[in-house]
Amino acid sequence: MTLDEKLAQLVGFWVDQGDEVVAPMAGEMASSSVYADATVHGLGQLTRVYGTRPVDPIERAAWLWNEQRRLVRETRLGIPALVHEECLTGLAAWQAATFPTPLAWGAAFDPGLVERMGTLIGESMRALGVHQGLAPVLDVIRDPRWGRVDECIAEDPYVVGVLGTAYVRGLQSTGVHATLKHFVGYSASQAGRNHAPVHAGPREIADVFLPPFEMAVRDGGARSVMNSYAEIDGMPVAATPAYLTGILRDEWGFDGTVVSDYFSVAFLETMHAVARDRGEAAQLALEAGIDVELPTGDAFGAPLAARVRAGLLDEEIVDRAVQRVLTQKEELGLLDATFDDPPSSIDLDSAAHRAVARRLAEESVVLLSNDGVLPLTSPSRVAVIGPNADSAEALLGCYSFVNHVLAHHPETPMGLDIPTLAASLVDELPDAAVTVVRGCEVEGEDRSGFAEAESAARAADVVIVAVGDRAGLFGRGTVGEGNDVLSLELPGVQRELVERLVATGAPVVLVVLSGRPYAIDWALSGESAVAAAAQAFFPGEEGGRAIAAVLSGTVSPSGRLPVSLPRSAGAQPFTYLHPILGGPNDITSADSTPALPFGHGLTYTSFAREGLRVAREVAAGGAFTATVRVRNTGWRAGTDLVQLYARDVHGSVTRPVAQLLGFVRVELGAGDEATVDFDVPTARLAFTGRDGERIVEPGTVELWVGPSCAERETEAVVEIVGDLHRVTAADERLVRSTVVQRRQADAAAPSDR
Amino acid sequence: MTLDEKLAQLVGFWVDQGDEVVAPMAGEMASSSVYADATVHGLGQLTRVYGTRPVDPIERAAWLWNEQRRLVRETRLGIPALVHEECLTGLAAWQAATFPTPLAWGAAFDPGLVERMGTLIGESMRALGVHQGLAPVLDVIRDPRWGRVDECIAEDPYVVGVLGTAYVRGLQSTGVHATLKHFVGYSASQAGRNHAPVHAGPREIADVFLPPFEMAVRDGGARSVMNSYAEIDGMPVAATPAYLTGILRDEWGFDGTVVSDYFSVAFLETMHAVARDRGEAAQLALEAGIDVELPTGDAFGAPLAARVRAGLLDEEIVDRAVQRVLTQKEELGLLDATFDDPPSSIDLDSAAHRAVARRLAEESVVLLSNDGVLPLTSPSRVAVIGPNADSAEALLGCYSFVNHVLAHHPETPMGLDIPTLAASLVDELPDAAVTVVRGCEVEGEDRSGFAEAESAARAADVVIVAVGDRAGLFGRGTVGEGNDVLSLELPGVQRELVERLVATGAPVVLVVLSGRPYAIDWALSGESAVAAAAQAFFPGEEGGRAIAAVLSGTVSPSGRLPVSLPRSAGAQPFTYLHPILGGPNDITSADSTPALPFGHGLTYTSFAREGLRVAREVAAGGAFTATVRVRNTGWRAGTDLVQLYARDVHGSVTRPVAQLLGFVRVELGAGDEATVDFDVPTARLAFTGRDGERIVEPGTVELWVGPSCAERETEAVVEIVGDLHRVTAADERLVRSTVVQRRQADAAAPSDR
Repeated sequence: MTLDEKLAQLVGFWVDQGDEVVAPMAGEMASSSVYADATVHGLGQLTRVYGTRPVDPIERAAWLWNEQRRLVRETRLGIPALVHEECLTGLAAWQAATFPTPLAWGAAFDPGLVERMGTLIGESMRALGVHQGLAPVLDVIRDPRWGRVDECIAEDPYVVGVLGTAYVRGLQSTGVHATLKHFVGYSASQAGRNHAPVHAGPREIADVFLPPFEMAVRDGGARSVMNSYAEIDGMPVAATPAYLTGILRDEWGFDGTVVSDYFSVAFLETMHAVARDRGEAAQLALEAGIDVELPTGDAFGAPLAARVRAGLLDEEIVDRAVQRVLTQKEELGLLDATFDDPPSSIDLDSAAHRAVARRLAEESVVLLSNDGVLPLTSPSRVAVIGPNADSAEALLGCYSFVNHVLAHHPETPMGLDIPTLAASLVDELPDAAVTVVRGCEVEGEDRSGFAEAESAARAADVVIVAVGDRAGLFGRGTVGEGNDVLSLELPGVQRELVERLVATGAPVVLVVLSGRPYAIDWALSGESAVAAAAQAFFPGEEGGRAIAAVLSGTVSPSGRLPVSLPRSAGAQPFTYLHPILGGPNDITSADSTPALPFGHGLTYTSFAREGLRVAREVAAGGAFTATVRVRNTGWRAGTDLVQLYARDVHGSVTRPVAQLLGFVRVELGAGDEATVDFDVPTARLAFTGRDGERIVEPGTVELWVGPSCAERETEAVVEIVGDLHRVTAADERLVRSTVVQRRQADAAAPSDR
Repeated sequence: MTLDEKLAQLVGFWVDQGDEVVAPMAGEMASSSVYADATVHGLGQLTRVYGTRPVDPIERAAWLWNEQRRLVRETRLGIPALVHEECLTGLAAWQAATFPTPLAWGAAFDPGLVERMGTLIGESMRALGVHQGLAPVLDVIRDPRWGRVDECIAEDPYVVGVLGTAYVRGLQSTGVHATLKHFVGYSASQAGRNHAPVHAGPREIADVFLPPFEMAVRDGGARSVMNSYAEIDGMPVAATPAYLTGILRDEWGFDGTVVSDYFSVAFLETMHAVARDRGEAAQLALEAGIDVELPTGDAFGAPLAARVRAGLLDEEIVDRAVQRVLTQKEELGLLDATFDDPPSSIDLDSAAHRAVARRLAEESVVLLSNDGVLPLTSPSRVAVIGPNADSAEALLGCYSFVNHVLAHHPETPMGLDIPTLAASLVDELPDAAVTVVRGCEVEGEDRSGFAEAESAARAADVVIVAVGDRAGLFGRGTVGEGNDVLSLELPGVQRELVERLVATGAPVVLVVLSGRPYAIDWALSGESAVAAAAQAFFPGEEGGRAIAAVLSGTVSPSGRLPVSLPRSAGAQPFTYLHPILGGPNDITSADSTPALPFGHGLTYTSFAREGLRVAREVAAGGAFTATVRVRNTGWRAGTDLVQLYARDVHGSVTRPVAQLLGFVRVELGAGDEATVDFDVPTARLAFTGRDGERIVEPGTVELWVGPSCAERETEAVVEIVGDLHRVTAADERLVRSTVVQRRQADAAAPSDR
């Protein structure tokens, strides 16, 4: 291979880049390259073939197959391009199914279902000739001011790792490669600002930000990783070999490709100023371990070629990346592909997609409070109010095709059937007279619709008010990439709308459709308290139906908060994984306690968790079993999320006061009970010790099960004994849960023990 | 020495601890020890003899001399106790002068004056038999939500280091030992919460938090250091040898004593849970490098003795600390002292104290905005409004004796003449009719005084409204230790009061008397803009007169913001020392730009800075001279703070977009000009490189002088050339400024070039 042929394999080309702005700085960074020129020596990747503008998938596939044939036939080496696309909430293509946003996966706590979703997404991608998907996002939420929280799964690294790995397994089961992003530290950006510097030490990086990636690499076998835009303690990740090579490859054994987040190689020059020009930026990135520059070869193209020719960079470093890229293409079957069978028809939103989208949405709705108004008991007059009540867009995340791409093409039909919450409620409550009133917009100060909303509320038996976010990017919308906030109040005048409706005296059910948790403690208690509040993180194309089903009682709510419900922006950052300090024991007048704790979520029945049992001792490095009984103590069926928490009471470094060890959804009929075993490797309690090694330390560990991280309903203690254990690759990272025994209530009536 | 005699030297005893609560957890931590029992084997330190409750200094001195004689005569070794006291804004003793708070020192940018203040404080302490003062605070401000911001000097480590070192030099020139605190990282506490975990990597610690301590140790020769309560990346500083021994002693050559912040040894057990009991806590702290436990021997007493006797700790580690303590006592002359000459009279608030307090206060007032209403031109009717207008307490910081101790003793007179702003204005404007109205309180929702305030405003030619903080501790007051905030709006209804006054149409001069910068952008422009706004960080006993003199024009304002004026709590943390990211170039919808930049401050005249010159090149490790002309272009005399900034354009790690290199106050008559040389060692541009070493890197450095960090009025470029330079102890850290040439305006009229 010539140098030009090698470098051609290390870059993407974004055919449609000029058309739209769907990536940060895409306008400013627009390449002047012509596609034909850029592919003379071959091409590493085709960028966002389906996800840049609305195109008919079958027509586009025909174009793509043709292009691939051209690359095979007309370039000297005959290597086709790898095609990558966004796929966070489903394939980012027109007419493709749009699933719940990752924060909703977190709320559902159901890895099996996420894996099924990943499989469906992968099948669509594979059928359309897409080889690599730029998902999942494994950033651990640290600050809800950050706009990208809706792309993240949870505040807990283990939950992120479990669900993210499930997604990877599903996607990759179809032969499509997943891309873990953003490696690493992005979500800790200062003040929740996109791209702002990350203040974190190596222990926090190792114990909070790296574990989800380690799980998805080691347990999920993820084939690609994308660097984060972040600079951590002054070092841009894109130029840091310790992360991209040391930890990822040398320590974890990752042997796939590392791709750059869009423009992040060039950003080493323009946004971090650690490189004087594009060539130096390319060299820093390549040496650190970035193999492929996306979206285009701004730096890995001509600037890198010049640098190699000038003798500033050993070509062996280039060869290392080329080898990885060609290995990946071989794995994907690209080296033998002939591209003579473009798809002639495809259903990107089949009944199977719908069923998984519906189920995941249902499981993700979190009932925050309820005075008994829910489930709705045959109301005859329902007022459905709010800017998110009758909006399809309000159900979708920022990387959905609708909000990401179609927002730029108002003339193009949505291409998907996305029933709004209001429409779904009309279906769900056939005997009710439903009035739909907008009341106000998500953003802005316009209160002119308040009066109509108030009068609709006064005329109703019950009010459903849907407020929250509109997902978008870079200033369009209220949450999503680049849409960071100074305040965690609901955007615009939405709080005021809700308070006005409450003041009418009608029972108000608040539905927050959002991409981040908001400071809505005022709605949970006090004079503006609503009758019931539900949180739905963008629940996808079936989200309207799912929420309606939960409100009506057709479905019992089973979601739990995957992130603390914040008190205010001024209390950020906050994490439930704080040591003694960092919580209410700070010696401070400013309360940091969240409005509702991680793990909280109500159901329409009630559960008791009892009799947590565990062996007295376990050897450091060994495993123990924690067993707990859970009983449906109410009068209807429901699903409990059994949450096992731990606290390592003393450590050589400070330890969190609560840490979710394991979780499992258990569905139980009224009066039924089940016994759950959690098999916990002590490596789940590992942390980075004083010497920088990950260890399991002997000592006392408190365990409990309860309805959230904040409540110990049943407790036990296990003593970790023996010598300190140094964690190795052989250590199990997963807690396995088994429902070992179920007992149905004897009679139709529930047990009243 | 017996083990008991050794350990007795390592602990303090707080005779009055039971009486009051002037330290965190002092109630909960109250020792049951009896003084007589605790001193059987001698005593290391007496804790806060003068500063715990109001006592007559001469009577207390008599008691103290007697106690010292008792220790000399009645203990086997005859070693007196070292007496320590708080002295941040002056000696914390009844009737002692109260100087401006450190944030005001920062605003004055006048190290010579701070040194004179330190000397005066030290002389008072020495006269009263106090040997060690628990000041200065060298924490670098990172987040104004933190309550202790009023105890800190600035947001810039170099400013903190220069002014802190000046204080140390002054205090220690009298033979009293300074204590640098809080070593290290405390001010970076998460979300600005007191004691919350610190998220910071080793580079940020080295480049931001350590430099002021290094300067005060190496250049100031500070004799004692106090650990910070913080845990950094999971490691409590009190148990981290790398900071307390590795950096402090091994690297910097510090050979004084390290004392524990109050209760922080015990906190290793109770607040950090890295120790299972007091004995283990004691061992961790002692091994890390804490020599003396304050305020009492909760851990270094009986628990540590038991641990040594059990063979768990090598007595040599105890001996190391004892050696340091005895060396310190020898340095202080304590080993030969006979204590037969207690003071019979003393003036703790002499004319010399007053003069320095007045001058420093005057220099610290920052004029934020002015439409021309200031200086006041003989108004005949002045309304002086606001909760801080007629309050002496409003002028004093949280560690002042008045706000720290007397707040618990409402029956005790203040013991000091502290004219309020209102009283000072009456004096300063003898021809005006001055009406004083409170309007509202600092805290709370009471608006009942608004009407009277509005009517006073309507009847006045000009309104002076003084709002802001009340300093206190642990929930008493709005700023000070433990008084952290969720919001940076002015406390209570004060903003509303100001807006109401503006709405009357009267010209309103806003005076913010506070311990932190507040988000008052609404007062600087827009419909609620005031005619003029001045920021006074608690300016001390002469602060009322100083502000009045500035408002009247007797004194021309010369203070500059030592901290960015924040946009909101939701924009925190923020620092002007950000790299390209972390400022307006974050790819975000949420503006982080402060309301006013670091270094901003208006005067009653105008200045032009011109013709910045510098050599084309300088060798890495060498020094260069930057020369600039400053000219008073207005019609009256004034003082400019000439601020030299730098930007290292490219670095191997990210570099701040602006960094204050040097500063000097230059007083100039109307039309006069001066030429200022800054001699800048390139070590001022040093940073922690990729390998963890502090280096000066070759490359281009942009220099500029301007009215704040945000404006480049005159620019130059210097190229650092040659080999990379590794910084050593021999490297100069200080920028020396010289006014090399002054030129008076030719005539009475200013130059109009």
